[in-house]
Amino acid sequence: MQMKKKDIKRFDLDKPFNPEDIKGLDIKELEQLSNDVKNEIIKSCAKNGGHLASSLGATDLTVALHHYFNLPNDKVIFDVGHQCYAHKILSGRSLDRLRKSDGVSGFQRRSESEYDPYEAGHSSTSISAAMGLALARDLNKEKYEVIAVIGDSSFANGVAFEGLNNLANFNHKVIIIINDNNRSIGETHGLLHNYFERFRLSKSYLRNKDRYQRFLKKTFLTRWFYYLTSWVKGLFRKIFIRSNVFTKMGLYFISNVDGHDIKQLEKAFKLAKNSPKTVAIHVTTVKGKGYQYAEQDDVGNWHGVAPFDIETGKPLKERDPKYISWSQVYAQLLKERIATDERMVLINPATMVGSCIDDLLKKYPDRVFDVGISEEHGAVFAAAIGLNKDIHAYYSIYSTFLQRSYDEISHDVARLDSDVTFLIDRAGLPGEDGETHSGIYDVAYLMSIPNVAICMAKDMKEAIDLFNFSTIYTHPLAIRYPKDITPIIENHEPREVKLGEWKVEVNEGDTAIISYGPVIDRLIEHFKGYTIVNAMFLRPIDIEVLKSLTNKKKIVIYDIYATKEGFASYVLNYLNELNYQGEVKILAIPNEFIKHGNVLDQVNNLHIAFDDLRKLL
Amino acid sequence: MQMKKKDIKRFDLDKPFNPEDIKGLDIKELEQLSNDVKNEIIKSCAKNGGHLASSLGATDLTVALHHYFNLPNDKVIFDVGHQCYAHKILSGRSLDRLRKSDGVSGFQRRSESEYDPYEAGHSSTSISAAMGLALARDLNKEKYEVIAVIGDSSFANGVAFEGLNNLANFNHKVIIIINDNNRSIGETHGLLHNYFERFRLSKSYLRNKDRYQRFLKKTFLTRWFYYLTSWVKGLFRKIFIRSNVFTKMGLYFISNVDGHDIKQLEKAFKLAKNSPKTVAIHVTTVKGKGYQYAEQDDVGNWHGVAPFDIETGKPLKERDPKYISWSQVYAQLLKERIATDERMVLINPATMVGSCIDDLLKKYPDRVFDVGISEEHGAVFAAAIGLNKDIHAYYSIYSTFLQRSYDEISHDVARLDSDVTFLIDRAGLPGEDGETHSGIYDVAYLMSIPNVAICMAKDMKEAIDLFNFSTIYTHPLAIRYPKDITPIIENHEPREVKLGEWKVEVNEGDTAIISYGPVIDRLIEHFKGYTIVNAMFLRPIDIEVLKSLTNKKKIVIYDIYATKEGFASYVLNYLNELNYQGEVKILAIPNEFIKHGNVLDQVNNLHIAFDDLRKLL
Repeated sequence: MQMKKKDIKRFDLDKPFNPEDIKGLDIKELEQLSNDVKNEIIKSCAKNGGHLASSLGATDLTVALHHYFNLPNDKVIFDVGHQCYAHKILSGRSLDRLRKSDGVSGFQRRSESEYDPYEAGHSSTSISAAMGLALARDLNKEKYEVIAVIGDSSFANGVAFEGLNNLANFNHKVIIIINDNNRSIGETHGLLHNYFERFRLSKSYLRNKDRYQRFLKKTFLTRWFYYLTSWVKGLFRKIFIRSNVFTKMGLYFISNVDGHDIKQLEKAFKLAKNSPKTVAIHVTTVKGKGYQYAEQDDVGNWHGVAPFDIETGKPLKERDPKYISWSQVYAQLLKERIATDERMVLINPATMVGSCIDDLLKKYPDRVFDVGISEEHGAVFAAAIGLNKDIHAYYSIYSTFLQRSYDEISHDVARLDSDVTFLIDRAGLPGEDGETHSGIYDVAYLMSIPNVAICMAKDMKEAIDLFNFSTIYTHPLAIRYPKDITPIIENHEPREVKLGEWKVEVNEGDTAIISYGPVIDRLIEHFKGYTIVNAMFLRPIDIEVLKSLTNKKKIVIYDIYATKEGFASYVLNYLNELNYQGEVKILAIPNEFIKHGNVLDQVNNLHIAFDDLRKLL
Repeated sequence: MQMKKKDIKRFDLDKPFNPEDIKGLDIKELEQLSNDVKNEIIKSCAKNGGHLASSLGATDLTVALHHYFNLPNDKVIFDVGHQCYAHKILSGRSLDRLRKSDGVSGFQRRSESEYDPYEAGHSSTSISAAMGLALARDLNKEKYEVIAVIGDSSFANGVAFEGLNNLANFNHKVIIIINDNNRSIGETHGLLHNYFERFRLSKSYLRNKDRYQRFLKKTFLTRWFYYLTSWVKGLFRKIFIRSNVFTKMGLYFISNVDGHDIKQLEKAFKLAKNSPKTVAIHVTTVKGKGYQYAEQDDVGNWHGVAPFDIETGKPLKERDPKYISWSQVYAQLLKERIATDERMVLINPATMVGSCIDDLLKKYPDRVFDVGISEEHGAVFAAAIGLNKDIHAYYSIYSTFLQRSYDEISHDVARLDSDVTFLIDRAGLPGEDGETHSGIYDVAYLMSIPNVAICMAKDMKEAIDLFNFSTIYTHPLAIRYPKDITPIIENHEPREVKLGEWKVEVNEGDTAIISYGPVIDRLIEHFKGYTIVNAMFLRPIDIEVLKSLTNKKKIVIYDIYATKEGFASYVLNYLNELNYQGEVKILAIPNEFIKHGNVLDQVNNLHIAFDDLRKLL
């Protein structure tokens, strides 16, 4: 007798989902829910932009987590957090205003929901964080599970490794879910990649079997053994497979769970929950699952997306042909240079697509290195390369991720005075990514390190000149640029730049405004009658130009690309040393964590807009 | 016929060794040389203090490296570098003035010798650095070996792991020597420790054999197999042993080389040199080899030593019973508190002995964690613990190593406003350890992060009060203290401290000196007629006290514990905001890398002594 197929109705996710509603669902309903959640994610990202592919890939897994575990009592930490959109929906949050200042953040946020027990934005912290929560739980004699969901690429980072290494002697239970989509933001690299690659059941088995075969077939006696023992290969397989990093640590390890099979996932969760000891679960998923364009994407274009048309997959906003992104400006300069300069090396930690340099990796594999999410290694590697008198190293990195190599910038690059140029992408306010992705601190923290020159171009012309400067300057240099577009300028006659050079763009009136970066041209346009100084170099400064300003009655230092503790304080110190008698006003980004939203809103909310500047004049 | 035993004469290491002289030596002579080098190291450390045990343990290995390889053409990088004393002697440098300002540094230094191709002081950078040098070599089409010597503890750090992970896809040959002395600065921890522990040949073999036995003895048939196959265990051993991290990466791995057997070492070097691919060599050594007290030390007391008597092993300088080290002050406070407060957790990254808290690890294993050289993990772990409203986490760490957790202090501790107190040991000038160990930058880099309060006590009384404050303050707090001694104060009646509190110690004259820390009492003594302000909190500041100073004609900000970019700039900003009309002078540590030497010499050389201060008044 055939069972009547149950009619599964779609879930209405236009209104907030009630987290309790997942409990009574059967497998078919869960699958339907997962499907609907995926569509809701696609819809929200198409409208607001966001981290589409990772969240789609983790949706089935998240549905299983919410169904099987007792959230929010049990705690789930999503590493990085950009894959948590399904988690947001299932915990009752709307993605309708995703990443807008009046909507939810693109990452886990404790302030948003009790379903977010920890939060991130930078990668690879989840194991250490889970350990901290588990310790607190046990000290308080409470009972719940602490679960870290971590991608294979985050897993290959030093912080995650340190957590894992410490887990070996840690007597407090956590569950670690390795979400292996065989894909980082761009490609996946290195030992751990190979490790996971091999670990997918069949390959791992085959390879170990091969080794076993090669050994046993060596002599007549062992060959004989081989045929005799082949029937116990199942057992052997288990022995070999258990011989992995996790079991070496004395942890339980559940491998090869299909991350899109909710039933299989829940089976694994049950094993993990019943275990008294820490368990790692290796789950394989397909990044972008449920949206064809994202599933087929090998490059990483669908990792973080701008608003798009769901049918065609095309961006909603046409690119203005008169403008180019700052990332592209520097990518072009890199491309031109690397083609002619065989002594140039380029390093980037897993943001090649974002910084528009992924094609260089294929074209110059000997001199271009995507080191994965290994910001620290990348900086030391660059430092050692740059020590060679003939070779200059470029380290292309987002401002917010550069801070993970703070120690290495100081201890290796700056202290050894190595010929390394940092190309700092996404400097300035974070926009939609919010507080974990601010590019506003780098000036202050680089200023705390001796010996690193810092500069920022106002337009393409200056970018070309500064880049040319970097090719002849043989000391640590940081070139910053924002996540923004800039007018295309063609036929620029390169001009030689001097270290520390400033330019007095306008010399009028008794008040000088010192600023830098793309805002300069708008200052010139909007503040007539004032002296406008373009401090192309944030450090060292142009002491002659600064001295020439000491006859002004007032000097205003205006910085919308970094915190007050950086450039503004640095110049204030010089003015104090020059015994400047006039008034000094500073308008810079306050040293805060900046909530997600649109950059213009952030500028207004922080009171660093032109209207605020005008009040100081 | 018996060979006449060659008479080996001792090497005179009172005069510089000629690096070329090692080439013609036979094995007996090399052993004699190694012995003499060890004695020279003991003599120098007994006189100057230094990193004795690590350098002794690596001496035989270093003799073999200098004899076998073609230095300085071949490049040897010592990870951290504190084990490089033998290398210094063999490359012609005298240890007579070791760590003095007119003598050699305690680490590799490029400026000292062409035998130092890279340099460090912080751990775990050598693999990445070797990769950088190897790439430069191959781009320049040169031919030489690049060798990284890295200890087992350094190997367990995130940076080393990132390097190793990237090595998997790196087509440029390096030789990595893992110097496994089963000992870090204190104890060795974690997964990799267990891994190496197991890997020592016999144990590894036994354990794998056990597994094999257990499997094969399961059934009658397999039991029968077991007895029959036991004779091929040699082959099995090889298979199991080869199945390790390095071979998984497709690298060659030479294991179980006795690091005190020069012949065996050179055999391994030969294999490594002949290999076209990257090779890792696992060498086992005994830390402290050649000096009985150091060999027998399980705790780590002989890691870094003050001058001592060679015969007795006792320190030369008697401790003044009226004084106590700052490390001990805070260690005592921690001990008292942890005994009564069951919700206190203490974390430290491998400097428990240096910070005098190693006994706490044994006494409170549930709440005290030595995370090994994992500064990043430690900070995230602390952040997650401190989020629990009932638990406060203390992160005890040296200032110079704290900078490796810069990103986690910002992204995890400060951003999440977690209840974490950083106990920052060795804040201030680095003294004999020199430029890689400065504790002068932390104020500036912590100032670049929102939300971390920073303070420093002038004496034991203030230390007690600040520590008590930390037990009730539930936000990120940094308490700094120098590597110095302070008078013991008994029977202090605790006083409640307010966040941001300053104290006007003396209110006299028209000039105010704002300073903080142990120098305050000496300022009071030496600068009569001036107002002396004790800025116990570096951030936030006491705005009321600062306002009260605006009627002074001159304000001097004096900081001998941090760079100008930190506290001094912060106060200057406030004075500017207050529109202070008087003169502001700043005397603080310049933002430089500070060469090794005695702290007083450093103070004088940097022109931040009292005489320099007097000139500004």
